[in-house]
Amino acid sequence: MPTTPHIEKHFTATAIVRDAVIGMSDGLTVPFALAAGLSAAVSSTDVIVTAGFAEIAAGAIAMGLGGFLAAKTDAQHYESEAAREGKEIDHMREHEILEIELLLRGYGLEGDPLKSVVGAISTDRERWIDFMMRFELGLEKPDPRRALTSAITIGGAYVLGGLVPLLPYMATENIRSALFVSVLTTGGALLCFGAAKGHFTGVSPIKAAFQTLLVGGLAAAAAFGLAHALA
Amino acid sequence: MPTTPHIEKHFTATAIVRDAVIGMSDGLTVPFALAAGLSAAVSSTDVIVTAGFAEIAAGAIAMGLGGFLAAKTDAQHYESEAAREGKEIDHMREHEILEIELLLRGYGLEGDPLKSVVGAISTDRERWIDFMMRFELGLEKPDPRRALTSAITIGGAYVLGGLVPLLPYMATENIRSALFVSVLTTGGALLCFGAAKGHFTGVSPIKAAFQTLLVGGLAAAAAFGLAHALA
Repeated sequence: MPTTPHIEKHFTATAIVRDAVIGMSDGLTVPFALAAGLSAAVSSTDVIVTAGFAEIAAGAIAMGLGGFLAAKTDAQHYESEAAREGKEIDHMREHEILEIELLLRGYGLEGDPLKSVVGAISTDRERWIDFMMRFELGLEKPDPRRALTSAITIGGAYVLGGLVPLLPYMATENIRSALFVSVLTTGGALLCFGAAKGHFTGVSPIKAAFQTLLVGGLAAAAAFGLAHALA
Repeated sequence: MPTTPHIEKHFTATAIVRDAVIGMSDGLTVPFALAAGLSAAVSSTDVIVTAGFAEIAAGAIAMGLGGFLAAKTDAQHYESEAAREGKEIDHMREHEILEIELLLRGYGLEGDPLKSVVGAISTDRERWIDFMMRFELGLEKPDPRRALTSAITIGGAYVLGGLVPLLPYMATENIRSALFVSVLTTGGALLCFGAAKGHFTGVSPIKAAFQTLLVGGLAAAAAFGLAHALA
C-alpha cells in the first residue's frame, strides 16, 4: 500500500523546503543589507560585525520561535475547529448532513450512491469530523513533531545564510573591499539557493536562481539606499 | 448555500493572522534585540537608529518578498503536482482507481456504494484530479491574490513592529534610558500582540499574551547576551 508513505513524503519535503527557503532568504538578505547600510554610516568593520552577529542571533531565534509559534497556532487552530465541528455534529446534525451532501454533489454524486456515502460517513463521529475538517475547511491534522522541526530548520537556515555576507567584514578592515566581496559571495549564494529551491519545488532551477538573485538584490539595494539616506 | 463563503472566511483570516503574527513577532524582537545589543557596543544613539532603520527596511522587504516567493512556490507546486496526477490518471488509470478505493475505504465505504462513488469521480478528469489533490496530497488550489496579500501583510507588520522598540532611541541621546523605555514598550507590545493573536486563533488571550512575551523576551535576551559578549 504506497498511499500513506507517499502522502508523508510530499508533505514533509514541502514544509521543510518552505521553511529553509524562508530562513535562508532572510539570512542572506537582511544581514547583508544591514552590513551594506552600515558601511555607509560607520568607519570600523568591528561595529558592522557586532551588529551583524546581533542581527543573526536575534533573527535566527525570532524566526525559529516564529516558526515554532506558527506551527503551534496551526495545531491549536485545528483542535478548536475540530471541537466546533464536533459540536455542530451533535447539535445541528441535519444541517451538517446537508453540508456533506452539498460537498459530495460537487463531485457528481446524486441519488442512492450519495445517500449511502452520507450514511457511511455519518455513522462514525470521529470519521465525520475528519471528513468535514478536510473537505469543508481544507485542514490536515498537524504533525506534532512539525513545530520543533520547523523551528530548527528556520533558525539554522537563517544562521547559515547570515554568515555568508558577514565573513568578508571579518576578513578585512577595509570596508569598501568587504562590501565588494560581500556583494559577490551573497550574489553567488542567492543563485545557488534559488537553483536548489527550484530543484526541490519542481520549478526550473535556472529560472528560480535568477528570480531569487533579482529579488534578493532588490531587497538589499532598497535597504542600502534607505540606510545611506539616513546616515 | 453558506458552504463556499464559509470556507473562504476561515482560510483568509487564518492566513492573514499567521502572516501578521510572523511579521510582527520578528519586527518586535529583531530590531529590539539589535538596538539592545548595539547599546553595549556603541556610544551614540545615531548609529543605533541608523542600524535599526536599515534592519527594518531589509527585514520588511526580505520577509515580504519571502512571503511572496513562498506563496508563489506553493502555487507552482500545486500546478506541478496537479499535472503529475493528470499524467497518472491518463497512463496508470487502474492504479489511480485503486488509490481512490483505498482512500474511501478509510471512510467506511465498501461494496456497491464504493463502486458508484469511484464511478462518479472517475467520469470527469478535472474532478478526479481535484479529488486526488485534496484527498491524497492534502493540497488546496491556492488563491492567486494570496501571494500579494501575504507580502504586504508580512512587510507592513514587520515595519509596525520594528518602530516600537526604536522610537525611544530617537527620543533621547541617553542610551541606557532608551534601552529601559524600549524594554517596557516592546514588552507591552508583545503582550498586546499576543492577546490579539490568541483572540484571532481561538486560544485564550491571556495565555497567548504571556506566552508571546516570554518567547519574545527570551529571544531578545539571548541576542543581547551574544552581542554583549562580542563587543
